[in-house]
Formats: sequence, C-alpha cells, structure tokens
Amino acid sequence: MIGDSEFDRDTALTRRGPGVYDIDLSAGWTIINAVNGGYLLAVLGRALADALPHPDPFTISAHYLTASQPGPAVVRTETVRTGRTLSTGQASLFQYDEQGDEVERIRVLASYGDLGALPDDVRTAATPPAMPPLDQCFGPQDGPSPVSGSSAITDRLMLKLDPATLGWALGSPSGKGEMRAWFGLADGRDADPLSLLLAVDALPPTAFELGLSGWVPTVELTVHVRHRPAPGPLRVSITTRNLAGGFLEEDAEVWDSQDRLVAQSRQLARVRLVNGG
Amino acid sequence: MIGDSEFDRDTALTRRGPGVYDIDLSAGWTIINAVNGGYLLAVLGRALADALPHPDPFTISAHYLTASQPGPAVVRTETVRTGRTLSTGQASLFQYDEQGDEVERIRVLASYGDLGALPDDVRTAATPPAMPPLDQCFGPQDGPSPVSGSSAITDRLMLKLDPATLGWALGSPSGKGEMRAWFGLADGRDADPLSLLLAVDALPPTAFELGLSGWVPTVELTVHVRHRPAPGPLRVSITTRNLAGGFLEEDAEVWDSQDRLVAQSRQLARVRLVNGG
Repeated sequence: MIGDSEFDRDTALTRRGPGVYDIDLSAGWTIINAVNGGYLLAVLGRALADALPHPDPFTISAHYLTASQPGPAVVRTETVRTGRTLSTGQASLFQYDEQGDEVERIRVLASYGDLGALPDDVRTAATPPAMPPLDQCFGPQDGPSPVSGSSAITDRLMLKLDPATLGWALGSPSGKGEMRAWFGLADGRDADPLSLLLAVDALPPTAFELGLSGWVPTVELTVHVRHRPAPGPLRVSITTRNLAGGFLEEDAEVWDSQDRLVAQSRQLARVRLVNGG
Repeated sequence: MIGDSEFDRDTALTRRGPGVYDIDLSAGWTIINAVNGGYLLAVLGRALADALPHPDPFTISAHYLTASQPGPAVVRTETVRTGRTLSTGQASLFQYDEQGDEVERIRVLASYGDLGALPDDVRTAATPPAMPPLDQCFGPQDGPSPVSGSSAITDRLMLKLDPATLGWALGSPSGKGEMRAWFGLADGRDADPLSLLLAVDALPPTAFELGLSGWVPTVELTVHVRHRPAPGPLRVSITTRNLAGGFLEEDAEVWDSQDRLVAQSRQLARVRLVNGG
C-alpha cells in the first residue's frame, strides 16, 4: 500500500508496462548535492516488490555506476527466478543524457520473500548498540549545517546522532570509524522493509569521524532485511574497520523499538585521501 | 595466468565467443554432496576477470538460484560499465536440463579494479583473529569424517580448524556462531584474489557450532577483496550474530601472513530448524 507520506510519495513509480516503471527522482533526498543512495535503493526495491511475486527484500545488492540527478528516470526489472518461498529479480535505474538516450545509474540483484511467513524463532546473539536516549542525541536542526552543499534529506528525516559520534561536526573527529543515530522519517511514517533500505545509508559517513572530508561515494551496497520493523524510532549503528587503499567498508545494523535486529548492511565506498596517507 | 594447480585447472574456462565461456564443473569441490559455493563464485570471478578490462574483483555479489552439479556448464557475461579505475559486470552460470535447455544456477553482479594500483595507505582498525598456531589446529584428515556425504573438497584444501570451533565435530557444539581456521590449497598454490572467493565459503558452517545440522544453503554471498594476499597460509574467521526466522548471516574475514585484512564477506543462508525452535 502506498501512503501519502513523503517517503511513499517520492518512491512511487508509474508502471509503463510489464517490468518498466517511470519516476521523477525527488530533489528532496539529496546530501552534499548527490541523490542519496539509500533513497535510490528504496526506489529500486519498490519496483522489484511490484514485479516479483514476493513482497519483501530479503537480500538486495546494488552497484552504483554513475551519479543520479533529481529528475526523470526509468526502472527496468527482470524476474530471474520464482520459487515457493524466495524469488530473485534484477533491476536497473536509467536516466537520460542530452540526446535522450538512457544512461544506467544503478544495477541491482535481489532475492525477495515474505517476512510475515518466517517462523518466529529468534536466536540473535548480537545486542543493540549502547546509545544515549533519543532526547540526549542531536540532529542537524540542533546546530548550524556542518557540511556545505544541499542537505535536503535532513528535512525528510528525524536523525539524532549519538554525541560520541558527533565530534566531526565540532572540528574534533574521534578517529574511530563509528556513526550512530536514532532514525525516523520526519513526517512520522513508521518504518517498513523498504524504508530500511534508506535507513542503512542515511547517516553521515563514518569517514567524517576518521578525519576525512568530502564525498564518500558508494560503490556497492548489500542489505539484508531480516524482520518487519516495529513502529517507533530505529537505532542505526555503523562501523568501519578497514579503511585502506582508498576504500572503506561501512557495516550498518538497524534495531527497532522491540530490540530486534531488523536489517544488516555492508557497503564498499571510495574515499579521497585528502588528509595525507 | 592460469597455472596447473588444482584450483586453476578446475576453474579454467574455455571461451566459446565474446562473453561466453564453457566449463566442466569439477566433482572435486563438493561438500555434503553439493558443489561448493565459493568454488562456483571463483569460476564466475574468473570469467569476469577475462571479460572486463580490470583484473581483480573488488566487490562481487552472487545470488544462488538452483543447486549446481558436477558436469557441463556455461557462463555468460555482460559488461555493464567500464570506467578508468572500476568496471562493472554481470555473469550467470547455467547448466542443462534433460531437454538440453539452459537452467540458471547463479547470477552475479561485480565491480572490478586493479588491486595493484591502489595507494598503500592502510588505516585498518580491525585486528587478526586470536587463533592458536597452525600446528595446534586440526583438519578433517586428523579424525574420522564428521559429516556424511561427499567431502571431496577437503582433499583440495589445507584446512586446520581452531579447536575452540571444533566442538561440533566431537558432539559438543559451543553454542557460539563462530568458525575459524588456517586455510590454504592442498597442492601449495599461493592465494590470489580469485582463490579468496573460495576461501570465504570453504569452512564448515557456523550453524554446526550453533547445534544445527544438515545443509545450510547460501542464498546470497557478497565478497569485498581489498588487497592481493601475500604468500603463505590465510586465517579465515567467520561469525554469525543473527540466527533468526530460519535464516542466518555468516561474516567472514580473511587475513594473510602479513596481517592484512585481504577480504571481507557476508552471506545470507537458510537453516533448517531441526533442533526445535
């Protein structure tokens, strides 16, 4: 069901024909002038949810080829295999060059299932991140904008960062590859499996706490959605342990208000080694 | 360069035409009667290394659709985008049904680069796993075969498990989702970026230490190859933290003899909840 929240409105697609969907990518989900990768993944995820016989992304991998811009785009999906409990699909998002030809921005491979059909056996050994309560965390609205360029996405989100991962905004990065925040949508829409695809890529880069600045473009992002999130704010905890050779990984965990580990992701991103090295 | 080691011989492909490669999948890399997923990923990885302008997998995601069998197979590749430092490609492995029609086994999306061209800036915060020395670890050759069915792959590998993750083989699983081993190829071939794709999926399942038995089929596997491995044995450390709803994730780290974190992977696998739950 597509509601009228900002997230639903801005990820809604118009089916042009079987497996082909049009969308006008919103300018409302940009960070540092780039359309946010998690928003784009949610757009592709919604297209595949329509195209495949199963409703929920279980595991979805995206390779980001060229930077997307706000404006017209088309998503083309392919059903790779349908099974009883899992289906696999592929999807690409294209935009248009000056001649009107399609240029591929992102290609995705994903396996979908029905989260509601999973047994309720939970043996999760991981525990939620240690974070201060929401009212002791801080968001972009609590201070001057610390990064130049458009940060329209911050108006779409309820984002309250753990003060222990805010040093970068005050000129004192911790040196540790960590970023943690309470996360929700600004208009109060509850989380769902598709909005989890946004949540894993919506925090500031861990690179900022590692003392690096500028754009940290995502090369590839894989998300595992493991449970429908309960209503209420999410906790997102991101860790980088392997900054080397001009690349880093960001591992994100998303925990819901029932202390369930609802999503796990890893992305490979490129860094510009501006600060020596 | 394809050498004459078992790994090179059994992952060698014959180019039929542009982007199309034939191979006879070896019966020598089976575990519990299934062709090992890491061996299959290495086959696809070798095809893409030939098809793309860049030699090394940087990030590669595979969705496993149907179980592969030893015997004839064809790999079809597609170049998605070529860039100066990264190229992206897609590849599928097919086998043949009784009518001789192609059945897709695995589909892969990957971005390739040149590991040799990366800057030598290393700020890895992660540290190698704490493990006993190789001569205090144990492999399948050191005791009776603990799992029924074909384990031909164990003859291809030098695999010495940390005793702390061997309880399952002695009827006393630890209850912790961990598996660690020293890893190499039995014929002494040094590791390289393609053999790392095998290494991340070549240990016994963490599910065994969690008290679960039987097949733990991989749904999806994503590997980041971050550095060319140095010669000598590798250390592979696998962790599962989210066994829930009939699925689990396995996070693998591969460390080389120079204490470099050369590869990181995560797979989503299905478990059969035989032991209650």
